[in-house]
Amino acid sequence: MNDFRLKLRIKAASLATFAASMKDEGGNIFSVFDEILDRKDKEAFLKQHSKVIWLTGLSGSGKTTIAKILERELHSRGYLTQLLDGDNIRSGINKNLGFSEEERIENIRRIAEISKLFLNCGIITINCFVSPTRSIRKMAEDIVGTDDFIEVFVDTPIEICEERDPKGLYKKARAGKISDFTGISAPFEAPEKAYILKTENKKAEESARELMDHILPLIVKEES
Amino acid sequence: MNDFRLKLRIKAASLATFAASMKDEGGNIFSVFDEILDRKDKEAFLKQHSKVIWLTGLSGSGKTTIAKILERELHSRGYLTQLLDGDNIRSGINKNLGFSEEERIENIRRIAEISKLFLNCGIITINCFVSPTRSIRKMAEDIVGTDDFIEVFVDTPIEICEERDPKGLYKKARAGKISDFTGISAPFEAPEKAYILKTENKKAEESARELMDHILPLIVKEES
Repeated sequence: MNDFRLKLRIKAASLATFAASMKDEGGNIFSVFDEILDRKDKEAFLKQHSKVIWLTGLSGSGKTTIAKILERELHSRGYLTQLLDGDNIRSGINKNLGFSEEERIENIRRIAEISKLFLNCGIITINCFVSPTRSIRKMAEDIVGTDDFIEVFVDTPIEICEERDPKGLYKKARAGKISDFTGISAPFEAPEKAYILKTENKKAEESARELMDHILPLIVKEES
Repeated sequence: MNDFRLKLRIKAASLATFAASMKDEGGNIFSVFDEILDRKDKEAFLKQHSKVIWLTGLSGSGKTTIAKILERELHSRGYLTQLLDGDNIRSGINKNLGFSEEERIENIRRIAEISKLFLNCGIITINCFVSPTRSIRKMAEDIVGTDDFIEVFVDTPIEICEERDPKGLYKKARAGKISDFTGISAPFEAPEKAYILKTENKKAEESARELMDHILPLIVKEES
């Protein structure tokens, strides 16, 4: 598989060289490719199928930790990915959104639309958001498109999440300082048709490996 | 230059193969790379420097036409790009925004934040938005970061833009059906320090070629 991808990259580079030299010789620059670039062109360029991997699960369930390991691993195998999570979304494009129900919906809507832009650029997006309800995930799926939306439930018992409490949010929720906190004062609706990634008694590396095994067949692009 | 990029791609593929085989032999998967992936990793993977090319200019000035040719050409030379314009922004993430002053600012703010995500993913973003005022472009520049923000003024006389009127907007603006229309009933503030792309008496292909000559030195990544 690694040799295979190496071969693909060499082929892509050779084709680019060939196309460019054709144009240089003819002196007629900008005339070889007439069509507008689309997703297929980007996927062919990157030698991968783009998908949106949507990790749902409680706060502290390990979504971002697993996603970061997964991203690193996919990168080392020659795949281009984009990780989206609270860190780069809530501090940037969605910094003007709070946590009302309306704003939580708008938060996920924008994330799904951004994912779609990356999808159309041929990139594998790995999203880490609690996205606790079926309706909010359905909205994301409708925006992205069902065929490209890979829902993954990071299934970690709430006791473990609360014990980890990496951001101190469970403590605040228990003290009543955060309202509508998923798992404490607001429901988490387990997905009905997602890939279920059970993390209990596993290292994050093991969970990421399991997830990679699930994803690789969906993103690998065979030579055509 | 084409041979050079070919060599880079082979090298990248070889390294990926080498890293993966190391891991397979050791049986100790997920242990070679410890750091979180960042922009430098993505740029190294893509063998390019990412930038945000921000095309400003009147409606009908040729921004998107030039950008599409530019994107196709960069693609054929081995660069990964993302084109953002009204078509993929106003119909998607910004479909809930109108054209009040506040909403126009929010429109550009979100676009700049999205560009920054692509920038951090190593991708060259080509943006086509009227963005008529210095203050709105300054906001975009502040979000993206001055070093990565390449402002380009697509300088086409308004008479030509109005004659083209591809979306019939000038006609509507003259009839008073659109208020605050840039160039007719709202000002366009020419940039002070942008690259000026004069398009008069040039084919779009020639303008795109001129722009590419300006951009290539900024995105080419030498072997380190």
